[in-house]
Amino acid sequence: QGILERLDAGEIVIGDGGFVFALEKRGYVKAGPWTPEATVEHPEAVRQLHREFLRAGSNVLQTFTFYASEDKLENRGNYVAEKISCHKVNEAACDIAREVANEGDALVAGGVSQTPSYLSCKDKTEVKAAFQKQLEVFMKKNVDFLIAEYFEHVEEAVWAVEVLKESGKPVAATMCIGPEGDMHGVSPGQCAVQLVKAGASIVGVNCHFDPETSLETVRLMKEGLQAAKLKAHLMCQPLAFHTPDCGKQGFIDLPEFPFGLEPRIATRWDIQKYARKAYDLGIRFIGGCCGFEPYHIRAIAEELAPERGFLPEASEKHGSWGDNLSMHTKPWVRARARKEYWENLKPASGRPYCPCMSKPDGWGVTKGAKELMQQKEATTEQQLKELFQKK
Amino acid sequence: QGILERLDAGEIVIGDGGFVFALEKRGYVKAGPWTPEATVEHPEAVRQLHREFLRAGSNVLQTFTFYASEDKLENRGNYVAEKISCHKVNEAACDIAREVANEGDALVAGGVSQTPSYLSCKDKTEVKAAFQKQLEVFMKKNVDFLIAEYFEHVEEAVWAVEVLKESGKPVAATMCIGPEGDMHGVSPGQCAVQLVKAGASIVGVNCHFDPETSLETVRLMKEGLQAAKLKAHLMCQPLAFHTPDCGKQGFIDLPEFPFGLEPRIATRWDIQKYARKAYDLGIRFIGGCCGFEPYHIRAIAEELAPERGFLPEASEKHGSWGDNLSMHTKPWVRARARKEYWENLKPASGRPYCPCMSKPDGWGVTKGAKELMQQKEATTEQQLKELFQKK
Amino acid sequence: QGILERLDAGEIVIGDGGFVFALEKRGYVKAGPWTPEATVEHPEAVRQLHREFLRAGSNVLQTFTFYASEDKLENRGNYVAEKISCHKVNEAACDIAREVANEGDALVAGGVSQTPSYLSCKDKTEVKAAFQKQLEVFMKKNVDFLIAEYFEHVEEAVWAVEVLKESGKPVAATMCIGPEGDMHGVSPGQCAVQLVKAGASIVGVNCHFDPETSLETVRLMKEGLQAAKLKAHLMCQPLAFHTPDCGKQGFIDLPEFPFGLEPRIATRWDIQKYARKAYDLGIRFIGGCCGFEPYHIRAIAEELAPERGFLPEASEKHGSWGDNLSMHTKPWVRARARKEYWENLKPASGRPYCPCMSKPDGWGVTKGAKELMQQKEATTEQQLKELFQKK
Amino acid sequence: QGILERLDAGEIVIGDGGFVFALEKRGYVKAGPWTPEATVEHPEAVRQLHREFLRAGSNVLQTFTFYASEDKLENRGNYVAEKISCHKVNEAACDIAREVANEGDALVAGGVSQTPSYLSCKDKTEVKAAFQKQLEVFMKKNVDFLIAEYFEHVEEAVWAVEVLKESGKPVAATMCIGPEGDMHGVSPGQCAVQLVKAGASIVGVNCHFDPETSLETVRLMKEGLQAAKLKAHLMCQPLAFHTPDCGKQGFIDLPEFPFGLEPRIATRWDIQKYARKAYDLGIRFIGGCCGFEPYHIRAIAEELAPERGFLPEASEKHGSWGDNLSMHTKPWVRARARKEYWENLKPASGRPYCPCMSKPDGWGVTKGAKELMQQKEATTEQQLKELFQKK
Repeated sequence: QGILERLDAGEIVIGDGGFVFALEKRGYVKAGPWTPEATVEHPEAVRQLHREFLRAGSNVLQTFTFYASEDKLENRGNYVAEKISCHKVNEAACDIAREVANEGDALVAGGVSQTPSYLSCKDKTEVKAAFQKQLEVFMKKNVDFLIAEYFEHVEEAVWAVEVLKESGKPVAATMCIGPEGDMHGVSPGQCAVQLVKAGASIVGVNCHFDPETSLETVRLMKEGLQAAKLKAHLMCQPLAFHTPDCGKQGFIDLPEFPFGLEPRIATRWDIQKYARKAYDLGIRFIGGCCGFEPYHIRAIAEELAPERGFLPEASEKHGSWGDNLSMHTKPWVRARARKEYWENLKPASGRPYCPCMSKPDGWGVTKGAKELMQQKEATTEQQLKELFQKK
Repeated sequence: QGILERLDAGEIVIGDGGFVFALEKRGYVKAGPWTPEATVEHPEAVRQLHREFLRAGSNVLQTFTFYASEDKLENRGNYVAEKISCHKVNEAACDIAREVANEGDALVAGGVSQTPSYLSCKDKTEVKAAFQKQLEVFMKKNVDFLIAEYFEHVEEAVWAVEVLKESGKPVAATMCIGPEGDMHGVSPGQCAVQLVKAGASIVGVNCHFDPETSLETVRLMKEGLQAAKLKAHLMCQPLAFHTPDCGKQGFIDLPEFPFGLEPRIATRWDIQKYARKAYDLGIRFIGGCCGFEPYHIRAIAEELAPERGFLPEASEKHGSWGDNLSMHTKPWVRARARKEYWENLKPASGRPYCPCMSKPDGWGVTKGAKELMQQKEATTEQQLKELFQKK
Repeated sequence: QGILERLDAGEIVIGDGGFVFALEKRGYVKAGPWTPEATVEHPEAVRQLHREFLRAGSNVLQTFTFYASEDKLENRGNYVAEKISCHKVNEAACDIAREVANEGDALVAGGVSQTPSYLSCKDKTEVKAAFQKQLEVFMKKNVDFLIAEYFEHVEEAVWAVEVLKESGKPVAATMCIGPEGDMHGVSPGQCAVQLVKAGASIVGVNCHFDPETSLETVRLMKEGLQAAKLKAHLMCQPLAFHTPDCGKQGFIDLPEFPFGLEPRIATRWDIQKYARKAYDLGIRFIGGCCGFEPYHIRAIAEELAPERGFLPEASEKHGSWGDNLSMHTKPWVRARARKEYWENLKPASGRPYCPCMSKPDGWGVTKGAKELMQQKEATTEQQLKELFQKK
Repeated sequence: QGILERLDAGEIVIGDGGFVFALEKRGYVKAGPWTPEATVEHPEAVRQLHREFLRAGSNVLQTFTFYASEDKLENRGNYVAEKISCHKVNEAACDIAREVANEGDALVAGGVSQTPSYLSCKDKTEVKAAFQKQLEVFMKKNVDFLIAEYFEHVEEAVWAVEVLKESGKPVAATMCIGPEGDMHGVSPGQCAVQLVKAGASIVGVNCHFDPETSLETVRLMKEGLQAAKLKAHLMCQPLAFHTPDCGKQGFIDLPEFPFGLEPRIATRWDIQKYARKAYDLGIRFIGGCCGFEPYHIRAIAEELAPERGFLPEASEKHGSWGDNLSMHTKPWVRARARKEYWENLKPASGRPYCPCMSKPDGWGVTKGAKELMQQKEATTEQQLKELFQKK
């Protein structure tokens, strides 16, 4: 059954987790460029991660084609492009995803994401051509449906949807925005409306913000669609990092990005709460993005097991709410084998010299602004000194 | 070259990371029993993790035989033992480790750890028999050397060393203790002395405590050996979790164990500091335990690259101190491409409702003690109320 | 010169700090009732606190008549009212304030605040009668102007202004609301408009929220007045506690209120930042409420000394930005004698087992709601248990 | 009854709180010099603070003569000494303390503290002469007993005790040290022994460390005395700041000293716990130092009211464990009117951008050491860069 048949029938569809972050920690992706040449260089590593997500409960395996447009691979991953063509990276990604999907009950989704061409103000034709090139591979490899994801500007996302839509396959579209909307100030509701009008059957958000913030953004999208009397399925694939202190541009501006995010990693219980809230909000395509490891996806599947009627394979190695601790030799560890314990735990960081929140970097704090401010302060400071000396 | 030849020549030997925690998150190990039946059930997952550590710089691949003594597999993993024999689990572990070791320059170490038999007060003969059984597999499979690890009582560790020593292969021995010593009150220095006298050529600690605490314990071991005029190589394989708030029994007593430890996960920079300190202390077998993912092992290899003269393979996907960010489109992210930035970052948790430290659970806070205390308080409370009412 | 002459001339007028909190800590006010019978019982304590504020730079001494309406004194302070009449409390407050004001350059402001009568739904006549009774004392004692403060409902505040306005004296009116508006949902802008229309010459906020939040509320009031083309002076007297985690009803709902607020106390540097921001926003009557001690008021006076051209008397015992440390014997303490040090310091709490933020109590978390939630969870939990057991 | 009669009879004697910090906030003492010329300049402010402590339950009023030795007044407070003689400061302090003590049941204690002469290596004769000069005033004004306090070196403390002892009056002696001992490395136990041998009848600690740390130091003093078979009464007057992160030299080295300590201020409940622990440890002279405000002293008196059989006067304005909230209009505030609530509250700081602990400043982090360290790092850094570039 295809993605739309499942969603139309009211099924919960579980997405997968974040490839670039997981594979960076495993040693196969370089932070910064974040390009997916590992599909060619180390297919066994990509295959294993797909398998873990499948086992954890994913119903959709996204081809590992993030940032795999030709312009991006040339631009940021040029050390790679000399040796490996964009075409080969995308083809290998499709083959690996399909191979693993066939081991279970999963769909393969071909994915495109924002392009450097758009950011450097290339025109619609050029940007669309980049998507078209990837689409050709997806069609040849016959993926089950398509996802346009990680767009900061709804204009580019609409172009992507328009290209993908021509294939005749179902199209999902997610943006990496928060409740404040896209980088040109288009509100989440308006973004959703434009994407659906362009042909997306599923809309939502992915990446850049934590589950709570992302759910709020999808809620605003839902409101926008309702106001416009449009219908679409909702989708959410947030970070598995706590980012209540983000600004408008998300976690990239946080000082900890990308090499100091560990203390923000969500627990499995945080993700169970997210899955429940997403479900209650009417979202039926529920997955994750950067930071989501297989056990986070399993947490979604376990939280929604009562509704779905089954557990994922990986639950054979996991008790519900920690009940695998009930045989521990220490009584106080046994006492942790219950839902209320983990649900209410406020986990400590073990880092007493670190704060809880950060001020995001960004334009607001650039050198020019700071200098002006300091100049102003210096003046009053000088005056104050004189006053004290006069006393 | 064998482990002792390398260490005797002054080489730095890099260990591997934590299998049970990493594979729990990947869906192949059950927390609580923590048994390694995955070597038979899902060899591809175990193989992939070995490969990632090898690629990250590990010179030693430990067979995934933690808690693989027969009594443990029967006791805690009985749902498994019916189907898979202890023998098969250990054999498969050896085969997988050897296969991956041959892909690079690594030694295979057969590992034994604490047994339920000892904890339930079985006698020396029975406990030794359990180690003997595992040793037979290691000899048949011809591992390069042996590690007795994760012992809370030096007495059991000494028994293990005595068994392993009969093989003629080099023996390393680590205890999961902190600066306060073993569970019977034997100091780290005395533990080291007893282990070396029993035949261990390499001694140190693993698991239960964070890098800083573990290094302090090894320092005390070194002092003990010096005082006793004994010589041995030093080894350290700590947690990749910050646990300054641990009690004597380590991280198991922390309320976050094992499903809420995320905010405590060490960054790669924390691990670089650990590697440097370990080196400065004279430790030459430097690895990790629970929480150590491949990128943490890479951090050890990168920190000590100037001393060793080479980088691990996985560094092809990693810049030194974040310098792969120097091409980022945002200037403030580019500004993070330098050592002082990451070295001095105090990463925020994104969890403003959580504390920084926890009080460990344990005997001190059992119900009986609490009730007594409350009774006493109730009395004075009553008296106090009366005083206020009299006013 | 009167208050309006000063403000009309563009002068900065500095208010005083929080009497009930300061005198509670000194032993003269009971938390809970918070009534001001100390004016009769311990006039020397009230006088001394007035003196300290005057010395710190206050240009306005408010009579200590907070919660001194007859209904309040009877209701919550009935242990007092038997012995001391409302009349006596108010008269003594006026006498003490005037005595100290005459020692310097300060105005006396008679103050009224919200009444139990309003909260228990008494009618306009009754509520106004309570204010009228206090006003009679203020007129007899000839205070310089009047302040209606600490109102959660603009309706009651308007009634207060109407009563006070009849005196012919200038009237200031502040509400204890945040950016979400009053308890009936009237926005800050609308509140300001209604108060000015009722006759207030000065409007703003006091109490309940921290400086940052309070300034945002005044900003919204300013916008409301501009939109309505009304003119009034602006005033701000916030808490000296950090309360970013407050809900709509302010710090009373925080779990720490009123006996655990210590970690939230503002430093003098926090207050200097507040004073500067208030000034930049166009506020010219700048003071404080609960938590403001004399040194916080001095911080306002010192921050705005360049604009005002003089320092308060108490600055003879204070250096600018810590410069009195420049003679310290320890070099690292001397290094603290500069503005950038204190301005950038992120002060630690010394409480590693405590969080940074709290969830406010309130209707949202009452027992009924919780039970319903738990019931729902229990159901899915049971279903989940069964699924796990089936495996 | 004198101090020794009371203590010998098993009475609990409650000390007073911290004058320099409280009066700094009230505007009468300058941080840095911390000298007590306020006794002459603003006697009403000093008198009022004495009264508040008396009312809160203090049985001992210390003359406000901290740092009032002639060398100190000249050295650090020279802007004062020109106008006001050391003699006058000390005399006024005695007069004010006596006046207030006579209003209740309190003893007056004349106090001397460490001198600049000792720190600048003047000899025994000169240092003793400074104490002698102050003692003359105390004898003339006939204080009830003498306290030598705030000594970092036991040698100087012994000299002080020797001088004071000649008066024939009882002598108490406290050091501002932690469990690591005095600045020359003399252990707390040895310090106590030397002080008792020099003639002190009461020994203990004051200032520099938080209650918990200070109690541990007194416990070590008690052990030292027991080992030496010496008898003395025990005394404790700690900070009312949480300082778990202090180094050997106490809170002065914390980056927050002295103008950013607010988040560390102890709640009344913290102090009740301190009072109980102090009592259980056998300490019978229980008071406070810097940070102790009158309500903290009242907390000691209330906690120990069951043992003493009476409450202090200021408890007329305070309920036991918050029970004055039981009439509040909001049910969730009423729910705070109980002991377990306040006892278990982990108060939030409201400062999510601040850490919980600080690294103390001090010799270890001076510029020289840092530079050396950086040089070393630069070298390996350079080598590492080259390795990465070679790849």
